[in-house]
Amino acid sequence: MVTRAGAGAAVAATAVVALLSAALALYRPPLDAVLERAFSLRKVHSIKDMENTLQLVRNIIPPLSSTKHKGQDGRIGVVGGCQESLRSAPYLEHSHCRETAGITYTGAPYFAAISALKVGADLSHVFCASAAAPVIKAYSPELIVHPVLDSPSAVDEVEKWLPRLHALVVGPGLGRDDVLLRNVQGILEASKARDIPVVIDADGLWLVAQQPALIQGYQKAVLTPNHMEFSRLYDAVLRGPVDSDDRHGSVLRLSQALGNVTVVQKGERDILSNGQQVLVCSQEGSSRRCGGQGDLLSGSLGVLVHWALLAGPEKTNGSSPLLVAAFGACSLTRQCNHQAFQKHGRSTTTSDMIAEVGAAFRKLFET
Amino acid sequence: MVTRAGAGAAVAATAVVALLSAALALYRPPLDAVLERAFSLRKVHSIKDMENTLQLVRNIIPPLSSTKHKGQDGRIGVVGGCQESLRSAPYLEHSHCRETAGITYTGAPYFAAISALKVGADLSHVFCASAAAPVIKAYSPELIVHPVLDSPSAVDEVEKWLPRLHALVVGPGLGRDDVLLRNVQGILEASKARDIPVVIDADGLWLVAQQPALIQGYQKAVLTPNHMEFSRLYDAVLRGPVDSDDRHGSVLRLSQALGNVTVVQKGERDILSNGQQVLVCSQEGSSRRCGGQGDLLSGSLGVLVHWALLAGPEKTNGSSPLLVAAFGACSLTRQCNHQAFQKHGRSTTTSDMIAEVGAAFRKLFET
Repeated sequence: MVTRAGAGAAVAATAVVALLSAALALYRPPLDAVLERAFSLRKVHSIKDMENTLQLVRNIIPPLSSTKHKGQDGRIGVVGGCQESLRSAPYLEHSHCRETAGITYTGAPYFAAISALKVGADLSHVFCASAAAPVIKAYSPELIVHPVLDSPSAVDEVEKWLPRLHALVVGPGLGRDDVLLRNVQGILEASKARDIPVVIDADGLWLVAQQPALIQGYQKAVLTPNHMEFSRLYDAVLRGPVDSDDRHGSVLRLSQALGNVTVVQKGERDILSNGQQVLVCSQEGSSRRCGGQGDLLSGSLGVLVHWALLAGPEKTNGSSPLLVAAFGACSLTRQCNHQAFQKHGRSTTTSDMIAEVGAAFRKLFET
Repeated sequence: MVTRAGAGAAVAATAVVALLSAALALYRPPLDAVLERAFSLRKVHSIKDMENTLQLVRNIIPPLSSTKHKGQDGRIGVVGGCQESLRSAPYLEHSHCRETAGITYTGAPYFAAISALKVGADLSHVFCASAAAPVIKAYSPELIVHPVLDSPSAVDEVEKWLPRLHALVVGPGLGRDDVLLRNVQGILEASKARDIPVVIDADGLWLVAQQPALIQGYQKAVLTPNHMEFSRLYDAVLRGPVDSDDRHGSVLRLSQALGNVTVVQKGERDILSNGQQVLVCSQEGSSRRCGGQGDLLSGSLGVLVHWALLAGPEKTNGSSPLLVAAFGACSLTRQCNHQAFQKHGRSTTTSDMIAEVGAAFRKLFET
């Protein structure tokens, strides 16, 4: 779907749901008009547009080959996980976790890491606080769990694994403990220095809202905020409230203000932008909003981002590989939700959704 | 398939994919020529050869009988499992594991031990470091877990179980901690003294690469290296790089140099040798290379090695019982991979493969 605005502002025609040249963003009123017009056409074109974009996702998926070794299809690391605990827990006496004010999760990093594996990564690591490690390990023997995130040498411990990782997912179950966040800051800096793609979610986004400079202009970062996280980020970066009538423009502007970092705003429909294009993912999901779905999204996105960068823009018809990867992860998460809801209805949990990853992946990307 | 090289170098005709007499190895150029010819014939004969070798595997499987007692069909021990941890984790203060440099796994010994059980062992033990024990126990109530591997009396603790064990699988999730490796060295020596068969994988192979004398000439040892581990072993024992154009010859030569220890080189096709015969297992698997498949192989091999030695060479038509057992374990692992992939596609994990052990075993060995 191609739209035009202003004299000579040509919009390149790629098969995305909505495509807007970055130049358009300079003209506020025309941009809004264009966006509105673009998305008013969405209903007519949505099925075809979705299908065209899904085809781009299919293009980035590496063929399985019997000559490959373990690890070649993806080694993903998840940074997060700190068991909430109290001063009364004596075995955590020396752990920084006990001072955490906010609640923290072991489920979130597990969901993200196991999702990465089920999407097709060969190996999935979790870098978490020491107290969280036995719990996360106990969820599944499939994961490699490193109890390092609250260690004084956390950054070094993660950094020595970076050469062996294709992508990092930062934030699931991270919490807001100062020591952990300082370590995560170091891990993000080390990842940038090595040009490793990072997906940032949950309290990883809280950290970015405190210090946008951490990912400013880093072209291999993808942020996956929900409604609240998006507002906080937007306010931190653009110093003003989000225009709730203009979700598409808001996502576009936040991405641009961050130096074209890819932003995925999760919601009833997911709005995605890299500051140049805006995509809308309206793959049918369900109305079930159980906690943990965002971890399925971030974990699968970790794999898809790696595959997309490996494939390169020639496989995505000129669109940003990261944007195509994000569209793939959004579609997959929604399809998992849809399938799980068909079976389990209101009782659907994120574990039910993760059990659908294989079938949902085949349905969307291997037909 | 029988091939001949040189005057009078007769190759005994057993129904294996490729069979070469040990004598052939003395003549380097003819050997290579023979190997080449043998394997060029493989395509024509592969289905029949595979089937014939599978028949030998069937011969070693003990019949289930209502008169047997618990334990008679196999009591297997897995030596491995040390939770990675750091000095900063206070609840591990007294564990040697905290000084581990490399990453270690609790998933790997679990996969090996549960696979042994599912192949048909009656009892499956894990001897692991103390910190790893609760996690491994939490994976499954089926396993008997001994938290002894980092104890000063580790060798004694394992040794007192040896009279009750039929085979040991050494290495899954072992790591490279000096204390643990020293204990494992003692356990290997005690096992040899009692003539107990040992399957060595993962960091157990790292130990063997440091001290090949540990298993030199031990006829009841089977090594199961992947590509990397094979190169390391080959370099340690034969003091030179592997000829990547001659996988079969390389496996044969490593086995011979180790005094006819059985070597299973895992790969796109698995190459097996006891220094006298070379087998190729090309049972259809899939292209999915999730971590943990090697643990399924080592665990099931633990059981099959016991059964094969119990059956003796008369049941294997003169072929080495250990080689037949290894062929069985390779075939089974690949069949599990194949079946799991049929159901789960790219989302296949090692847990999915282990869920297929029963059906795969029936299909391969009970038809």
